[in-house]
Amino acid sequence: MTRRGRRSDCPVHFALEVFGDPWTLLVVRDLMFKGRNRYSDFLGAEEGIATNVLADRLARLEADGIVEKEAVARGASGQYRLTGKGVDLLPVLLAIIDWSARHDPQTAADARFVRRYRRDPKGLEKEIRDGLRARDEVR
Amino acid sequence: MTRRGRRSDCPVHFALEVFGDPWTLLVVRDLMFKGRNRYSDFLGAEEGIATNVLADRLARLEADGIVEKEAVARGASGQYRLTGKGVDLLPVLLAIIDWSARHDPQTAADARFVRRYRRDPKGLEKEIRDGLRARDEVR
Repeated sequence: MTRRGRRSDCPVHFALEVFGDPWTLLVVRDLMFKGRNRYSDFLGAEEGIATNVLADRLARLEADGIVEKEAVARGASGQYRLTGKGVDLLPVLLAIIDWSARHDPQTAADARFVRRYRRDPKGLEKEIRDGLRARDEVR
Repeated sequence: MTRRGRRSDCPVHFALEVFGDPWTLLVVRDLMFKGRNRYSDFLGAEEGIATNVLADRLARLEADGIVEKEAVARGASGQYRLTGKGVDLLPVLLAIIDWSARHDPQTAADARFVRRYRRDPKGLEKEIRDGLRARDEVR
């Protein structure tokens, strides 16, 4: 809806304009936690995103400054990475994981990860941020 | 997608099945922060939700156990309230508000509220939870 003019400056509304769509946040999840960073990786995620939906969501995420595409040689398949604004979505994702771990009896959330988050959210956050930074520097 | 069978047990996916839609989380926001709790209140929100969309999202939120409708006399207009599972979305909403405050130059997020959240997230959370509980007890 950003593209159709702004309906309110409410911070919840602003955020939902950017990622208030299940597929969008699943791509962010893949980049953040699953080490997936190519188009084909995202297509392979268990939820089965359709190729046209993926292309649309990646274009929006780029336009909104959440992901960026790395420069690559012509013909090579590009890798995506989260921008700083994208990495800043980490606390949102962690809060979501905690909520699901609490309320989904079938959750695949890792119990140790969730316990760590509940005990020391800032420490876990820092660790994940450091890991993402190191990965980007290696590439 | 819950209704169409489960594609994965990923905790991010689970949560997005429930509220991965902008309108759904705006209704939760209204109940949590804006003191709106009637159908007509939600319709009046600045984002301008359409009546058929609102009816659909409220029905889904009820089915997913996030909101419940209070019993009322016949003919009276019903009030909604968040269930415990719904109130547990508070940390997700707070993380979203923080992210928008950081990245939206036009944000309407209250600067004092955001500073308080950054300094003492657990304290703010408890205060809001207590407020919601008190409100429900008064009604």
